[in-house]
Amino acid sequence: MPSKAQQRYLLASAVAGVAAAIRIIRRRNIHVPPQPLPADFPVTPKDVVDAAKRVRPHVHRTPVLTCHGLDELAGRSLKFKCEVFQRTGSFKIRGATNAALQAPENAPLVTHSSGNHAQALALAARSTNREAHVVMPRTAPAVKRAAVAGYGAHITLCEPTNKARAEAAQKKTEEVQGYFVHPSNEPRVISGQGSVAVEFLEQCSDLDALVVPVGGGGLIGGIAVYAKWKRPSLKIIGAEPKNVDDAYRSKQKGELVGHDDRDSVADGLKTLLGSNTWPVVRDLVDEIITVEESEIKKATALIWGRMKLCIEPSAGVGVACVLSEAFRARYPADEYGTVGVILCGGNLDLAKASAKLFA
Amino acid sequence: MPSKAQQRYLLASAVAGVAAAIRIIRRRNIHVPPQPLPADFPVTPKDVVDAAKRVRPHVHRTPVLTCHGLDELAGRSLKFKCEVFQRTGSFKIRGATNAALQAPENAPLVTHSSGNHAQALALAARSTNREAHVVMPRTAPAVKRAAVAGYGAHITLCEPTNKARAEAAQKKTEEVQGYFVHPSNEPRVISGQGSVAVEFLEQCSDLDALVVPVGGGGLIGGIAVYAKWKRPSLKIIGAEPKNVDDAYRSKQKGELVGHDDRDSVADGLKTLLGSNTWPVVRDLVDEIITVEESEIKKATALIWGRMKLCIEPSAGVGVACVLSEAFRARYPADEYGTVGVILCGGNLDLAKASAKLFA
Repeated sequence: MPSKAQQRYLLASAVAGVAAAIRIIRRRNIHVPPQPLPADFPVTPKDVVDAAKRVRPHVHRTPVLTCHGLDELAGRSLKFKCEVFQRTGSFKIRGATNAALQAPENAPLVTHSSGNHAQALALAARSTNREAHVVMPRTAPAVKRAAVAGYGAHITLCEPTNKARAEAAQKKTEEVQGYFVHPSNEPRVISGQGSVAVEFLEQCSDLDALVVPVGGGGLIGGIAVYAKWKRPSLKIIGAEPKNVDDAYRSKQKGELVGHDDRDSVADGLKTLLGSNTWPVVRDLVDEIITVEESEIKKATALIWGRMKLCIEPSAGVGVACVLSEAFRARYPADEYGTVGVILCGGNLDLAKASAKLFA
Repeated sequence: MPSKAQQRYLLASAVAGVAAAIRIIRRRNIHVPPQPLPADFPVTPKDVVDAAKRVRPHVHRTPVLTCHGLDELAGRSLKFKCEVFQRTGSFKIRGATNAALQAPENAPLVTHSSGNHAQALALAARSTNREAHVVMPRTAPAVKRAAVAGYGAHITLCEPTNKARAEAAQKKTEEVQGYFVHPSNEPRVISGQGSVAVEFLEQCSDLDALVVPVGGGGLIGGIAVYAKWKRPSLKIIGAEPKNVDDAYRSKQKGELVGHDDRDSVADGLKTLLGSNTWPVVRDLVDEIITVEESEIKKATALIWGRMKLCIEPSAGVGVACVLSEAFRARYPADEYGTVGVILCGGNLDLAKASAKLFA
């Protein structure tokens, strides 16, 4: 028979053990089954799983890289999902391919895009033997226009406002009797982008949080639908430039708001959340953290210099977020020791970008 | 009994089959045993194999990447060995570590270097609890000086000539009673750099040729000693800037010649072959191909834009070589369908480099 002191010790040990186990289960999601999501979402976890299978033969399974120097700066382990190595130079080929593979037979594909989705849709159309028509703002980098034309798509230029491009795309869709593939709000695009998370969670079993740049919300939408179902304890944090913070302000206000066509060095993130991406961001994304233009430039240059990866500033937004004071304060390293960051793309006008980043 | 026509057909098939098998054996080196090398080389294949084992816990096994766009441009399959992702940003940590692990006990390490070897030796010294003294030309990029200082090494600046740095290093070695580790001519450095080839041949069994940038010859020396022993049919081609073509002219003349301290955008390749690297380059390297400054800049920018890798221009020299008219003419794609290229490093002053590459 153990003594009183021994009994107390054993009891305390048992309590501590159970508490530790609960912490591990909550954080690592061991044995916690996938959770049902609200039924009215435009995209279900099954849509994402199906999309991942559908696009697999057409996209790269991009590597996850780490960098000791970045880990030291962040004070924790960072895992970088390198969509910068994806076909067409960004994750956008995933959603575009998923949409193209399900479009009505022979319909030309139509879209508007500031660049990466344009290239992606152009290649997806070529791969599926369709015509593609792309409405681009006349301010889009020359390198992006050349890439779209290089894939054989027809380009229509418009004014660089969200309104102007939506109108021009609608007109073009009617004109060619095409299938319109919105760069972020189209459900098949959202589920296609979610395939990033299917791969990332297979590649890394120890993530405590995921940081995802937010523009139109297609990427974070698809990721959140899948990841919150597959691993409910995983935090999903959106990273947004303060200059174009419609997602942040929408979350604050509890309703979808726009912004005033302000500019950002992260030109891929200037688009707005839409009717399909907003409910997902509202209900499944834990938080949006905004970063200044100077932080974006610094973080982008850091990845060039330390990791030797030519990311575009939109990808730097996620890096800036994970290095920000706000992130450190709200997601302390002792609780969130391993954070995944999506390096979403690497398409840029190198002359202009490097002048901005290293001048 | 087969008919005459059948006999002729069978005979022709047999001859064709044997010829094909011989071609495969010659190119892939199936069942051809490793070949003995001249006995008087400063480094043996066994030295390289031992070095690879010795440095393994201290260096990254860097990935081999491919790029569809580059393959199209080259008209063949290219395999890029990404030493740009190596610790300290270049392959130099391999040789420096191999030397540091065999230096006399407690001796400070001394070297002269335009940059990458300096960083490597500084880190290798720190890892083995030694002091490091580095002589650098006063023109070395600020980012490289900062990195060397960051690893805790002592820096002595000198004039940017090969003569001045050799003298300053000798003086420093005597002063601190140190162990001098030449950046390229030291045999332990050569065998350490050869570990790149040990990995590369493990990672790719189908290489027909290897293209290696040549500065002081440590990298190509170690690679050639190992690769020509392990797979004698593999062509080893050195890539050198035309502006600093001492290796090319030495091969032409059959004896070691210098150059006149001319400049190149590929600042890592301005050093000269030495007494130990020259015999290896003379006897085991199949050929040196030189490239113009404009070709180096274009090839470097191409890797940034297409592969999203921030390589330094010295690495661009290998890429420029494989894309050059001379290479295509002498190593036709139908015979040399798969070529390995060493992306040797990615350390650069991003502000200066990007201004040069994308202005």
